[in-house]
Amino acid sequence: MDGTLVDGRVTVGGDARQRYFDAGSYGRPAGGGVELARVEAAHLLYRGDLDAVDGMRFREFFLDSVQAEERFAARFLVYADFRERGFYCSPARDGWPGYDGDPLPDLTVYERGEQAGGDVAYRVLVAGERRPLPARDLAGLTLAVVDEESDVGYLTCTGDGGFDGRTEASLPTDVAATLLDDRAVCWDPPAVLYESAFYGRPVAGRDAAVVDALQLSLVEAAALADRGVVALDPARVRERGRAVEGERFDRRLAAYRRLRDDGVVPKTGYKFGADFRTYDEVTSVDELSHSEALVRVVEPDHEFHPRDLSLDVRLAGGVRKRMVFALTDGEDVQWLTVGRLTP
Amino acid sequence: MDGTLVDGRVTVGGDARQRYFDAGSYGRPAGGGVELARVEAAHLLYRGDLDAVDGMRFREFFLDSVQAEERFAARFLVYADFRERGFYCSPARDGWPGYDGDPLPDLTVYERGEQAGGDVAYRVLVAGERRPLPARDLAGLTLAVVDEESDVGYLTCTGDGGFDGRTEASLPTDVAATLLDDRAVCWDPPAVLYESAFYGRPVAGRDAAVVDALQLSLVEAAALADRGVVALDPARVRERGRAVEGERFDRRLAAYRRLRDDGVVPKTGYKFGADFRTYDEVTSVDELSHSEALVRVVEPDHEFHPRDLSLDVRLAGGVRKRMVFALTDGEDVQWLTVGRLTP
Repeated sequence: MDGTLVDGRVTVGGDARQRYFDAGSYGRPAGGGVELARVEAAHLLYRGDLDAVDGMRFREFFLDSVQAEERFAARFLVYADFRERGFYCSPARDGWPGYDGDPLPDLTVYERGEQAGGDVAYRVLVAGERRPLPARDLAGLTLAVVDEESDVGYLTCTGDGGFDGRTEASLPTDVAATLLDDRAVCWDPPAVLYESAFYGRPVAGRDAAVVDALQLSLVEAAALADRGVVALDPARVRERGRAVEGERFDRRLAAYRRLRDDGVVPKTGYKFGADFRTYDEVTSVDELSHSEALVRVVEPDHEFHPRDLSLDVRLAGGVRKRMVFALTDGEDVQWLTVGRLTP
Repeated sequence: MDGTLVDGRVTVGGDARQRYFDAGSYGRPAGGGVELARVEAAHLLYRGDLDAVDGMRFREFFLDSVQAEERFAARFLVYADFRERGFYCSPARDGWPGYDGDPLPDLTVYERGEQAGGDVAYRVLVAGERRPLPARDLAGLTLAVVDEESDVGYLTCTGDGGFDGRTEASLPTDVAATLLDDRAVCWDPPAVLYESAFYGRPVAGRDAAVVDALQLSLVEAAALADRGVVALDPARVRERGRAVEGERFDRRLAAYRRLRDDGVVPKTGYKFGADFRTYDEVTSVDELSHSEALVRVVEPDHEFHPRDLSLDVRLAGGVRKRMVFALTDGEDVQWLTVGRLTP
């Protein structure tokens, strides 16, 4: 069969509706036939199920489409990949099945066994590896990142941190402390501070029999000062934090406090290149389980570079932790969890 | 015994030379006694081997030293850590044993069993996790990075990529190709290009019986165009590369070409958040071994943030690859390999 290109859509008459839409979930019914998006027509040409569009075979039509539509090659690759994996899918565009009006996704992928218009499995945003991705808009989307060698990797984005905080500790007040450069020190700290609530780090190392000095990071010191636990002026600690790392300090502190408020224990994530690693439940540092999540703090209008996102998610997966982003301006905190996906 | 602080040095008389220098490799002989750097005196106070310095015990002397010397707390932590691990070490400063005149290291650590002035095991640069580290000066150094919770992590830096390129393939010339957006496509490519030399990626996926189109990344296309293998104007490919990723393209191309010239096969490192993953020897893509290294391309005057460095090295370690940085301005390439170390 042959198609005709009109205004960026390919129309096919005859029994195309039965052949392509009813039997294969390609396109949308129009008139007596079917209307196909370029990506759908290209896929039919590629498979040999359509002969030509305005005389163009696959190669010519593909080249023509790359000129005509943005990111066509990448979108075609991802469309073809889902089809090969046995999913029906539709381009996410006005008038096509499954479209929900969100301008960001490129593709609507249906649950296995569902035809066009059925239950949606993935709302897919297709990105080249250099396309900046707006952090605040990603929740609920599946990212299909096409790398420079045209390999496709998938990431799922959830607007939730997945925390299940169950840490409780009754803290003392007015513990003596000194601000020291980019950290603080508690001298002769009450045992609960480190041993139950997991604040700070003993100067003598974790295995020392008696903790006679506890080093606190500046975020820990600021959070504890705010709550009156350590005898430091909260404003002074915050000021020191800003002097050391600028406005980023306020954002990290907001995420830190939110986690502590939710019963989650954040500790430095430096060794994983993150801001924090987190423990849902700490009862004693002697019986510490593995941390469950890595948290990176970003601004609400942060744009991810796919490569950085890939690095973070890959590392977190390698150490069996969730990768969670905290989107915050220093006040509210929104979580975004990003994980790897094999559709 | 008591010490006296003079010009930032602590002098101790009596039998201090035998007790501290000869028996413990602390300080340097001076007059009849010994001269100690603050970090050494603090460690002796901490261990109770010295009673006081100008009447100050450990806590007071430590606080005084934090005020007096930059990064004192971090340097003390690292000094104490090496001592606890059973190494003798000296502060890297003029007049002290083992000092070689390099202004960057903070600490000279001797081989196990060696006393002050003996064979050197590590030249240690101490950095807080926020200190930028100049890429071009790191070869030969050990980085001791103190994170915000005062935990110390060690990285070794070697001025070598550790590549052992053994890939050879005889390539055709003038293969037809088309520049497409941010990639290139070879139509009906000769088999050797992908199957032996591992250029590009088949459009139909790696398992297709017949490769009738090969997608090339822009760096691959530029390198092949330069060598006359594909029939594309090298200048046009380069121009497209710059349009897509700016000057970074020239730097990545320089690293890519250097690797290929050395018989190493670079492929995209996107999934690892790097520029390339590399194979020392490819004879056939059907018998591909694991890649041995990840390469990140940076400018010669690049400064690492310890957290990013930690992330890269951790990820590479997790997938059993070397982490190699290519320092290049688009012409010459210098390698820097960074790995984790447990002293």
